[in-house]
Amino acid sequence: MNDAPVFDENFRKELWRLIEWRRDVRRFRTVPVPQALVDELLDLVQLSPSVGNSQPWRFVQVVSAAKREAIRTNFQRCNADALANVSGKRAEAYARLKLEGIDAAPIQFAIFCDRSTCQGHGLGARTMPEMLDYSVAGMIACLWLAARAMGLGLGWVSILDPAIAARDLDTPTSYKLIAYLCIGWPEEEHVDPELVRLGWQDRTRLGRDILCV
Amino acid sequence: MNDAPVFDENFRKELWRLIEWRRDVRRFRTVPVPQALVDELLDLVQLSPSVGNSQPWRFVQVVSAAKREAIRTNFQRCNADALANVSGKRAEAYARLKLEGIDAAPIQFAIFCDRSTCQGHGLGARTMPEMLDYSVAGMIACLWLAARAMGLGLGWVSILDPAIAARDLDTPTSYKLIAYLCIGWPEEEHVDPELVRLGWQDRTRLGRDILCV
Repeated sequence: MNDAPVFDENFRKELWRLIEWRRDVRRFRTVPVPQALVDELLDLVQLSPSVGNSQPWRFVQVVSAAKREAIRTNFQRCNADALANVSGKRAEAYARLKLEGIDAAPIQFAIFCDRSTCQGHGLGARTMPEMLDYSVAGMIACLWLAARAMGLGLGWVSILDPAIAARDLDTPTSYKLIAYLCIGWPEEEHVDPELVRLGWQDRTRLGRDILCV
Repeated sequence: MNDAPVFDENFRKELWRLIEWRRDVRRFRTVPVPQALVDELLDLVQLSPSVGNSQPWRFVQVVSAAKREAIRTNFQRCNADALANVSGKRAEAYARLKLEGIDAAPIQFAIFCDRSTCQGHGLGARTMPEMLDYSVAGMIACLWLAARAMGLGLGWVSILDPAIAARDLDTPTSYKLIAYLCIGWPEEEHVDPELVRLGWQDRTRLGRDILCV
């Protein structure tokens, strides 16, 4: 306990900058990512918080051209549906957005939650079984920051039909799709989100208004 | 774009240590937390990732003794149910665990997802509406790390009946409970989780085995 670290003002400033400069990346250079970096990230994120120490995240690395093509087809269908559901200026704006990097990202993971895991013995997930999913989402947030600290970009694709993705990747029925992640060296760095830059959605203060009871 | 930060080896080492030393804290000193620190954290986490830039997190700060008591009663009922559901050695082990710090934590937030928000115009949440909830969970992961970087502990309480919590806190029907957070100065620091130390659940490598397809 006595060797517990104290993080100084300088580290906090850098951490704040890291959080500020983390982006959802959809434009990747095709330069490979050394396996040692990927392994370092995967080892690190095992330390992410999880309900009951259940560590319910399951990584399926999508490597083959055929599987990537299946994911891309899934995305394209869902994205076409989404576009068909908006009209006018919104549809024009939607059509301008690039929402994934499946064509170029060297590292791609489908991330699942194993809802059937015995690890953790159900602690903390009895009244809120979705806590297992939230543990996986929190792990991805840690992975995102750590990847950016290495200069790597990460993009979270959610415009997918989860049932079709599970079928295409042939995963166990207890696996719930949480995210499809594209990882690689980004083509560019920005402090503002692409959705802000392209006029889709500004940041607001709605989530900053604290209700006190 | 040219002022994009490069994070060096030294920063990454510290960040890795931060992730290693982040704990779920249930034992708090009653020393107050300066409001300026809380405000700094709340401002910072607005920059967390969110689907479609929806920022769907909603903070309800639980301040009054009556509301805290309601949450504690909710916890106690759910925890008694959980204990009644296990037997033998597991029940003895469960009874030894301290799973929340509602009695002492100076800062307490119920965190909700506003499932009805128009912000983001539904982008990325059409086939996976739960992406809104995951955005809130990811924000909490960022908050957790930033709080620890300040020396603050955070505990995520999920042993609650969400419907009763929503009724007790009188929140809009579109708000979904994601977490109840206790925040304050920790009594002690550990590099290993309490659930490991007390023999409830060791860390495993299950989530580190990567399936390649």
